[in-house]
Amino acid sequence: MSNAAESEIRQLIEGWIPAVRVRDISAITAPYADDIVAFDAVKALQFKGKAAYQAHWQACMEHCQGDMIFEIEQLQIHATPDLALAHWLNLCGPAREEGGEDKSCYMRVTAGYKRIDGQWKVIHEHWSAPFDMETGAALFSLKP
Amino acid sequence: MSNAAESEIRQLIEGWIPAVRVRDISAITAPYADDIVAFDAVKALQFKGKAAYQAHWQACMEHCQGDMIFEIEQLQIHATPDLALAHWLNLCGPAREEGGEDKSCYMRVTAGYKRIDGQWKVIHEHWSAPFDMETGAALFSLKP
Repeated sequence: MSNAAESEIRQLIEGWIPAVRVRDISAITAPYADDIVAFDAVKALQFKGKAAYQAHWQACMEHCQGDMIFEIEQLQIHATPDLALAHWLNLCGPAREEGGEDKSCYMRVTAGYKRIDGQWKVIHEHWSAPFDMETGAALFSLKP
Repeated sequence: MSNAAESEIRQLIEGWIPAVRVRDISAITAPYADDIVAFDAVKALQFKGKAAYQAHWQACMEHCQGDMIFEIEQLQIHATPDLALAHWLNLCGPAREEGGEDKSCYMRVTAGYKRIDGQWKVIHEHWSAPFDMETGAALFSLKP
C-alpha cells in the first residue's frame, strides 16, 4: 500500500466534506469521474455517470434545507498509487436547534478512487443505512 | 489497471456465489480478511472482523431457509496487482414456488480486495437497499 497515495486520498476527502456542508454542488461533484457509478442511500438502485449523480445531489439538497451536520468517523483508507478504497461512518442530518430534537443519523459510506490523467477521481460511491429484516424500515437510530 | 488481477478477482467472485447458494458458511467466509469491516444490508451499522461477520452470515442463513435466488448483474471490477474494488447488483431472495409470489429483490454490493501474503482477501463488503426519503422504508421493488 502507498502512504503518499493514502495521504492524497485523505486530503481529497477532508476537502470534500466542507463542500457538502456549504452545499456547493460543483465542488461536491468536482472529483467525480465522468463514468462514476453511485449507489446512493435513497431513491434508486444506482446513478450512472456524473451528470445523473449531480442532478440527484441537487435534488437532495433542495429536499433538505438549512444548516447541516456532516461528519466523518472511523475512516479507513486502502491506497495504491493508482487505485484506492475508503470507507467510513458518516453522521448526517439537520443541525439541531436549541432545545430541538436530534434528527441526525449514521450512514455507511464506501468510495473508490482511480488516478486518471494524474488526478484522483471518484469512480464509485456507496451510501446506505441498514434496514430491519422484520419491518423493512431503515434503521436511523444505530450508533457506532 | 491489471488484467491478470481483474481476472483473479472475477474468478474469486464467481467461485463465491455458488457457496452462498448452498449456504456453505466456511466457503462463504474463506476469502474474508481477519480484519474485514463489513457494512451489511441489515441489522447493524457494521460488523468488524471475520468472526463477527461469520456469526452474522450464520444468523441470516438460519433466518432465511430454503432454495435461494442469488445472482450477480452489472459486475464492474477495478484491479491493480495488490488492491481491487468490485461493485454489482445482486438479485437475492427465496426461489419462487410454482404459482407463488416473486419475493426476490435487488441489493447493491461493493467489495474491496487486498492481496495479503500472495492471496486475495476481502477487506471490505458493503450491501444495501436504498430507502424512500419520505417513509424511511427500504425499496425492494426497484429493477435495474
